[in-house]
Amino acid sequence: MGLGEFDRIARFFRPLAQGLAGALDLADDAALLDPGPGRDLVVTTDAMVESVHYLPGEDPARLARKLLRVNLSDLAAKGATPLAYTLTTALPSQPDDSWIARFVEGLAADQAEYGIGLLGGDSVKTPGPAMLSVTAFGTVPKGAMLRRAAAKAGDDLYASGTLGDGALGLRAARGDLQALAADAVEALALRYHLPQPRLALGAALVGIAHAAMDLSDGLPGDLPHICAASGVAAEVELARLPLSDAARAAVAADPALQAVAWAGGDDYELLFTAPVEARSAVEAAASATGTPVGRIGRIAAGQGVRLLDPQGRPVESLAGWQHF
Amino acid sequence: MGLGEFDRIARFFRPLAQGLAGALDLADDAALLDPGPGRDLVVTTDAMVESVHYLPGEDPARLARKLLRVNLSDLAAKGATPLAYTLTTALPSQPDDSWIARFVEGLAADQAEYGIGLLGGDSVKTPGPAMLSVTAFGTVPKGAMLRRAAAKAGDDLYASGTLGDGALGLRAARGDLQALAADAVEALALRYHLPQPRLALGAALVGIAHAAMDLSDGLPGDLPHICAASGVAAEVELARLPLSDAARAAVAADPALQAVAWAGGDDYELLFTAPVEARSAVEAAASATGTPVGRIGRIAAGQGVRLLDPQGRPVESLAGWQHF
Repeated sequence: MGLGEFDRIARFFRPLAQGLAGALDLADDAALLDPGPGRDLVVTTDAMVESVHYLPGEDPARLARKLLRVNLSDLAAKGATPLAYTLTTALPSQPDDSWIARFVEGLAADQAEYGIGLLGGDSVKTPGPAMLSVTAFGTVPKGAMLRRAAAKAGDDLYASGTLGDGALGLRAARGDLQALAADAVEALALRYHLPQPRLALGAALVGIAHAAMDLSDGLPGDLPHICAASGVAAEVELARLPLSDAARAAVAADPALQAVAWAGGDDYELLFTAPVEARSAVEAAASATGTPVGRIGRIAAGQGVRLLDPQGRPVESLAGWQHF
Repeated sequence: MGLGEFDRIARFFRPLAQGLAGALDLADDAALLDPGPGRDLVVTTDAMVESVHYLPGEDPARLARKLLRVNLSDLAAKGATPLAYTLTTALPSQPDDSWIARFVEGLAADQAEYGIGLLGGDSVKTPGPAMLSVTAFGTVPKGAMLRRAAAKAGDDLYASGTLGDGALGLRAARGDLQALAADAVEALALRYHLPQPRLALGAALVGIAHAAMDLSDGLPGDLPHICAASGVAAEVELARLPLSDAARAAVAADPALQAVAWAGGDDYELLFTAPVEARSAVEAAASATGTPVGRIGRIAAGQGVRLLDPQGRPVESLAGWQHF
């Protein structure tokens, strides 16, 4: 038997709202949210469904952290500093309190890690798979939010960290990368399960970057959004796409994974553009925040995305990039 | 076949974001929200699950309006003026575009009715029942949000409108009220399907009312929250509970429904307290907003809720009120 809804809120969720005055101890119909003087409030929302976005047996603590982090990654891409979040859970009719306790442990760990608090939410029952939805709030200096629509022809195109680890990590977690050493399998799986939202880098890029977004669907899925929103084209130099050692090892063991590594998905790295004059400022932001940043191409007039081989020749088609 | 997610957003949801600059045409990772100078931002969230909160065959337009209205009712209870909302939908893997088109019609109708816009959201697939979650944003003058925890001993206790129509309306919609005239059945069912958030009254009560909340679970479920949060007791005069003509007719036809009418649920009326000196101000707020308001009891020192019969004697127990 699970606790009743009010007991469950009091026992498990109220502690997550401590120290956040606007949450009113989760004991009111609504909450108050204050971006603070001179700040804009940034809002984003992302949901996960059992058996669609995660497996039923997934560790609830790790799941909670991923749920928060995919939302925080959107804030990072806007240059925002996280403030708070609301949580809506639809759980099976007989929720298992030990599952909830472990889920709350994960929330608490990442609340501490990222300096946020639980503002409110709703919990409902469902006869179907669990669904978990977070709306995250952050703040940026007034008028300074990084946007998708701000890329300019002539900009450099950058990506943070390494690409492809998320997509390879999903395969690693499924046990598909048998030829790979155990530590590489583990490193890749961790990238899939526990993405690192690039919050420090995002905040440091405010006033430097033009356009920015986070890489959740992979470069072939996400870059066209910046191009379409900004009314520009992009050129990507395949040889410059940054791969981790583990990803390189996976590709060495199975060259068919090259396209998977490039096309990616679930990396939660930042994809951004900045004017050529800002190269040293971008390097300084990367260095100050301890975040690797690589220049992977450029923005041009026109529309669409072109892939270039190491000799700068257009690549017509590439497995995994078909929807370019 | 349904449209792809991006086409669906562009075709169905982007028009709902027009005129709301912070929504960025639903084409970015996040949205901007500005409560405006001198205003506090109020946040609330409520979700609905198919087969739990509504029947699978429910008209999507009416469902959309109820989803918005249950959220707007929470804003009303806080004295807030609605501003915007985010929407998360988890729909079956093969969503029916005509269902979505009709759902969006309902959203558009109530956006126009309540002066709000769609700020952002997420749409995911689910193998299970549909789940729909709204986070609604409103504003109040700084520091003026009505709260549950503000009732004072000696306050009058008020309810807006009529009670019990929601609970009787559910029975009416199910076809359980065979003895009732068709127009009364229709009136009750409409109350259940399309609650009227008391936004004008809530805003007018700012600076007048002490504590406030909306009646979603029914008086026996909701009033104890005000008492517990405020550290006070409440006395309810059963003879003063306001019933609609349709509810009275239902009770006349089946006296067992008296407790259902009183215990209610799904009414989305406002329950609030105000000092005795504010009686004329409460009447003026009710009159100015065209909202019936009835005095149904008082707040006292102590704890718990007491029911009083027409002679002012405590009623020990009442079917439907057992959890008092």
